[in-house]
Amino acid sequence: MPEPFSLADVYSALEDLRARRPLVHNITNYVAMSVSANVLLALGASPAMVHAVEEVEDFVAISDALVVNIGTLSPPWVTAMRKAAERAQAGGKPWVLDPVGCGATPYRTGAAAALAALAPSIIRGNASEIMSLAGETGAGKGVDSLSSADDARAAAAALAGRTGAAVAVTGIVDYVCDRSGPTAIHAGHALMPLSTALGCSLSAVTAAFAAVRPPRQAAVAALAVFGAAGSAAAQRCRGPGHLPVEICDELYRMTPETLAQHARLTT
Amino acid sequence: MPEPFSLADVYSALEDLRARRPLVHNITNYVAMSVSANVLLALGASPAMVHAVEEVEDFVAISDALVVNIGTLSPPWVTAMRKAAERAQAGGKPWVLDPVGCGATPYRTGAAAALAALAPSIIRGNASEIMSLAGETGAGKGVDSLSSADDARAAAAALAGRTGAAVAVTGIVDYVCDRSGPTAIHAGHALMPLSTALGCSLSAVTAAFAAVRPPRQAAVAALAVFGAAGSAAAQRCRGPGHLPVEICDELYRMTPETLAQHARLTT
Amino acid sequence: MPEPFSLADVYSALEDLRARRPLVHNITNYVAMSVSANVLLALGASPAMVHAVEEVEDFVAISDALVVNIGTLSPPWVTAMRKAAERAQAGGKPWVLDPVGCGATPYRTGAAAALAALAPSIIRGNASEIMSLAGETGAGKGVDSLSSADDARAAAAALAGRTGAAVAVTGIVDYVCDRSGPTAIHAGHALMPLSTALGCSLSAVTAAFAAVRPPRQAAVAALAVFGAAGSAAAQRCRGPGHLPVEICDELYRMTPETLAQHARLTT
Repeated sequence: MPEPFSLADVYSALEDLRARRPLVHNITNYVAMSVSANVLLALGASPAMVHAVEEVEDFVAISDALVVNIGTLSPPWVTAMRKAAERAQAGGKPWVLDPVGCGATPYRTGAAAALAALAPSIIRGNASEIMSLAGETGAGKGVDSLSSADDARAAAAALAGRTGAAVAVTGIVDYVCDRSGPTAIHAGHALMPLSTALGCSLSAVTAAFAAVRPPRQAAVAALAVFGAAGSAAAQRCRGPGHLPVEICDELYRMTPETLAQHARLTT
Repeated sequence: MPEPFSLADVYSALEDLRARRPLVHNITNYVAMSVSANVLLALGASPAMVHAVEEVEDFVAISDALVVNIGTLSPPWVTAMRKAAERAQAGGKPWVLDPVGCGATPYRTGAAAALAALAPSIIRGNASEIMSLAGETGAGKGVDSLSSADDARAAAAALAGRTGAAVAVTGIVDYVCDRSGPTAIHAGHALMPLSTALGCSLSAVTAAFAAVRPPRQAAVAALAVFGAAGSAAAQRCRGPGHLPVEICDELYRMTPETLAQHARLTT
Repeated sequence: MPEPFSLADVYSALEDLRARRPLVHNITNYVAMSVSANVLLALGASPAMVHAVEEVEDFVAISDALVVNIGTLSPPWVTAMRKAAERAQAGGKPWVLDPVGCGATPYRTGAAAALAALAPSIIRGNASEIMSLAGETGAGKGVDSLSSADDARAAAAALAGRTGAAVAVTGIVDYVCDRSGPTAIHAGHALMPLSTALGCSLSAVTAAFAAVRPPRQAAVAALAVFGAAGSAAAQRCRGPGHLPVEICDELYRMTPETLAQHARLTT
């Protein structure tokens, strides 16, 4: 049984994040860069996008957390991702892996597996990505998930067991698994998958929380805060277009009341 | 004379697209990636941005359509574009070429011409791009067009005749030409050229329709639906800033009534 | 003492910019591309993002101004930046340097210094970037600034003296320094640093003004117009999410009244 972690604990983590304003080093995909940066700024973190092999190690050294997202990977980027992850591991810095599209092509699956071997603190993906990374025969369809998060919970537990990471699998209900068992996070909204890079942004948020909490608590806090912001934001939207900007506003204005109204934790 | 294709046919194509949710493989420019992904999601398609030479062919194989946009080209990207287009051609997958900025520099013009030789299903550009690709002495000014769509209609017909593609040239009035003749699409709004990457996003929309209709019908449907969404969206805007997010909302909510109110087809 | 330059002069520069619609060549970071393009379009300029070594020199030749921003630099991009800057210098085209994150890593600091040696017309950065580029021991924290603009004014003056550029340092109050002394621009809003790439977009705006005014006047005009747009936009926002799209609308609608209400120039 995992240690209990309540919404009050989640909000306390957010207050610490806002006070510390962690520098989050993002090596992420081209699609997600702008929205991830805006989400991190609205949350209270300080984002930087830095990917050159010539400087990633130096940048990890001055950062509070790292997120590696393989969405638009290519060989020079994968080299930089590995160097940054190794440096984070060596320096005891928390780092988050988002294995976007794992299972869609052999190149992508291989890159994700190689990164997963570098001791990520947290792995965040959708059901088909986590199942593929865990070695299941996932039904990947591009970067969108065809499996429910329920289907993937067993794969997440297996992946957590093998890597030591906290594994967050997101879907209708989100789950965070580590070796102590699962926590379920009930939040979010059906419009969210219709706006690009929100999952990627969530991974960046997870890294920001990992600067102020241990991996499992960081992942639960990130999913609850981001899901609550998404749910609150969707109420102001007539379609997916405005969702990302509304989510930024909700993150910026997040209160214990909004969190309690839009997120729920269960085991 | 082209086969008649009405707004009712356009809406039927949209319904089929929403039902099938085609996976659209985008090799596009950095500026357009995020808005193209959001537009495709709002429309009802499933976008993926994948450009590494190591995986583009594998990804074409699992996709329903491909769009190649040379906006921010460089040699490794051009190599991937060619491989992907060749694979699409070999596999009978529809693919769309957007020759952004063709005519602005010799490098760009050469890359566009080489891609146009790989049997694209559809070519979508503005007047100066289409005129340049057709071999006219176009008056390219960066990526914005200095010629009217009317001026380019002859060039589009010539390009369609030479390549076998359906050629869509967009401006105040849009035209789709194939070897059977032109269709004119009256839709859109004067604010649209003041918001970046909407033309690129339209090319992505064209690819999504090409997954459910033959090239000419796909191009007409894309121009009508996107133009109607743009026109409806502009009514909610006080400037170009909100236009892309309003367009996403309008695409998501598109009805036969909105389509009829904001788009018209003529020969 | 610098030559006097009033808000009426600023608005006159904006009118000239709108009439001329300068083509601005951007070699900028992945995060900023989309918002910079939208900001330039709303302002009245014509943006293009072109970075391949194979075409940057040809593109500088047809452009009215160039902006080089090192935000997500890597070796092939730095090569292109240098070639483009050299071509601008040789051709007498104005060019703007934005040394994003200068001071954060040796690689980044070295690239910025090498570019600063190529006679930029204008250098635009935050306090820690300008202090680092001027050779001060800056307290860089990623890409966000830890020093006040006041602290950096001396560094800006020193950098202006050494390079001959007009140096714009932005913060609570913005300053433009050249060899004739400083101008202070009072505009902007506290929400602006919470939305990504607005500083980068401001550098692009500075390049657009450099197509129609000498460097110092261009920098002052850019800071006043962009700051006024930001201040007016913030009044319509409940958080940082909507800020960039509101800024585009305000730029598009900018009047002498809005400018006078939201910006002030002092020495």
